[in-house]
Amino acid sequence: MDRNENYLLKNREMIDRELDSFFKMKLDECRDPVSRDMVARIRDFTMNGGKRVRPILTIAGYNLFRGFDERITKASISIELTQSYLLIHDDVMDQSETRRGKPSFHAGVRESIPEGTWDRKRLSENLAIVAGDLADSFANEAITRSGFGHKEILLATDLLAEIVEYTGYGQLLDINSAMDEEFGQKDLMRLHLWKTAKYTIEGPLMMGAVLSGSEKNLKPLSYYGYLLGLAFQLQDDILGLYGNEKTIGKSVKNDVNEGKKTLLMIKAMEYSPEYMPFINECLKNGDISDEDFEKLKDIVKSSGSYDYSINMMKKLAEKSKSYLELVDGESETKNFLKWFADYIITRQN
Amino acid sequence: MDRNENYLLKNREMIDRELDSFFKMKLDECRDPVSRDMVARIRDFTMNGGKRVRPILTIAGYNLFRGFDERITKASISIELTQSYLLIHDDVMDQSETRRGKPSFHAGVRESIPEGTWDRKRLSENLAIVAGDLADSFANEAITRSGFGHKEILLATDLLAEIVEYTGYGQLLDINSAMDEEFGQKDLMRLHLWKTAKYTIEGPLMMGAVLSGSEKNLKPLSYYGYLLGLAFQLQDDILGLYGNEKTIGKSVKNDVNEGKKTLLMIKAMEYSPEYMPFINECLKNGDISDEDFEKLKDIVKSSGSYDYSINMMKKLAEKSKSYLELVDGESETKNFLKWFADYIITRQN
Repeated sequence: MDRNENYLLKNREMIDRELDSFFKMKLDECRDPVSRDMVARIRDFTMNGGKRVRPILTIAGYNLFRGFDERITKASISIELTQSYLLIHDDVMDQSETRRGKPSFHAGVRESIPEGTWDRKRLSENLAIVAGDLADSFANEAITRSGFGHKEILLATDLLAEIVEYTGYGQLLDINSAMDEEFGQKDLMRLHLWKTAKYTIEGPLMMGAVLSGSEKNLKPLSYYGYLLGLAFQLQDDILGLYGNEKTIGKSVKNDVNEGKKTLLMIKAMEYSPEYMPFINECLKNGDISDEDFEKLKDIVKSSGSYDYSINMMKKLAEKSKSYLELVDGESETKNFLKWFADYIITRQN
Repeated sequence: MDRNENYLLKNREMIDRELDSFFKMKLDECRDPVSRDMVARIRDFTMNGGKRVRPILTIAGYNLFRGFDERITKASISIELTQSYLLIHDDVMDQSETRRGKPSFHAGVRESIPEGTWDRKRLSENLAIVAGDLADSFANEAITRSGFGHKEILLATDLLAEIVEYTGYGQLLDINSAMDEEFGQKDLMRLHLWKTAKYTIEGPLMMGAVLSGSEKNLKPLSYYGYLLGLAFQLQDDILGLYGNEKTIGKSVKNDVNEGKKTLLMIKAMEYSPEYMPFINECLKNGDISDEDFEKLKDIVKSSGSYDYSINMMKKLAEKSKSYLELVDGESETKNFLKWFADYIITRQN
């Protein structure tokens, strides 16, 4: 195994151990069976899969300026708890029944409520909303209990609040996009910057950097994060249309059935306007047939839209690496982050 | 006007001004019309009524140990933003159409979406969930921007996270209570401690105290808050059954239609077990008739349950005042808090 893969796996293991011990502590603190059951569900949801990309980036952002430290592992799980919070709410909002190949949070809760209970569906969704809010509290707690100094903790919790805030704005744009006939590439890029790039790459990385106490080099590192984050989203959209259901852990039709106006769709309509009515129908359908789905995939490829996304993704990843060069940080971690940029755009899940 | 009422009104005005300028800043920061519209809605929701009990308590908790300070007004609005966050989510969960005599947040959003839009109801609820999450971010921001020292800010944000966490646990117990046939007085008191007493009285008061830098006197002040918080809840339940719809700003049948097993209901069933089937039917009905509602109110009174709650409430308020006596704080603020205990249990909204 090469050094970079090793860095990824080693940190992933440490993060999982830390999550496990955090939840042990929270479960010990619970003073009634209802809370304990829900905290155990949040634990199971969080522990089930997840590539831990975000906390690994927090650790890497730290390692750029400071060596290994158990406090950064403790703080890094914060963004993974935020991830649980947002995914739990997302699945309620999207009415998704599965997540990471298992029942989504509210679907799991629903199954535990006896059939015939009044308003069982709404009840399980409500419990999931509260569970998400709890996971959000846990995220803050993970930072404040990490053992860093007051100043660093404050910078990091501020950043986390900002990440969540901008994810919210992105989410609003996203929900709104379904209603907005004029929704175009510019709106989409802003949505991706806020909802994905900041949240998945830039934010976690910067949390690690501010926890290290470093105050220089933050600007180019931030650009690396934003650009790679956009690339990440483009690969996500590609996997959401052409990926392998087993590998990505959800129905490959989800994005289309949710009516997502991805860059793939926007550019296909622009390049092959004769298919605009068909594509719009597919996005409004909500339950696309196998036949139409195959036709849609063909149109995205034949229109040139697929290649457009692939090229843009590669350019973004290259550009992100050039910003990374400007960061005066520890060289092995820089190498890891360069390798990581390629990993992001070639990943299959 | 007496001194205490004056303290209440003066602080309420300052809090409203501070909320207003906080939202001005957030609106200025918004970089797209979708976010701006949503932040304006959060502002309108927050500015519409609300007695500002929680931020006033934060200021009073501070004034016990330190004199007037513009920073505490800035920090105090945090708990009011948390209140918006929780109310917005609550109304989605309860499917309430009104709040403070106006449309609830998601109901207002729904009206702004053109009729005939696909899944308009779900869409507006999703936007409300995200708006609530945004208000939660704002709540943290209000503290971190208040200008206090790092240590005080951290103590206060920790406390806020803990308040929200325990409100969540209380919420879980509450949702669960509808399914739990054995739900009794002990469970109910725990629910009230977490969901109301900590959140409405004890937590806000302690936030002010920790921001003042005081480290002594916290225990008796905390007891004052918890006990008065329980009394607050009992008065809430009484108003929720016997209150004036116009004054309380919501349908007086809400609690019953939501199936709330209040102490009034639990004790009525205990004292007049012959009415247990009738009371349970009322709580499961979801849309109680005027006739049954009047009968239910009569049973609660004739069974002695009403008097039980009134007496318990008075005892709790008295006990809370005796704990306050143990606090070595500024005497005018102590007088206000004593007056406030009586205000809480006699208020009509």
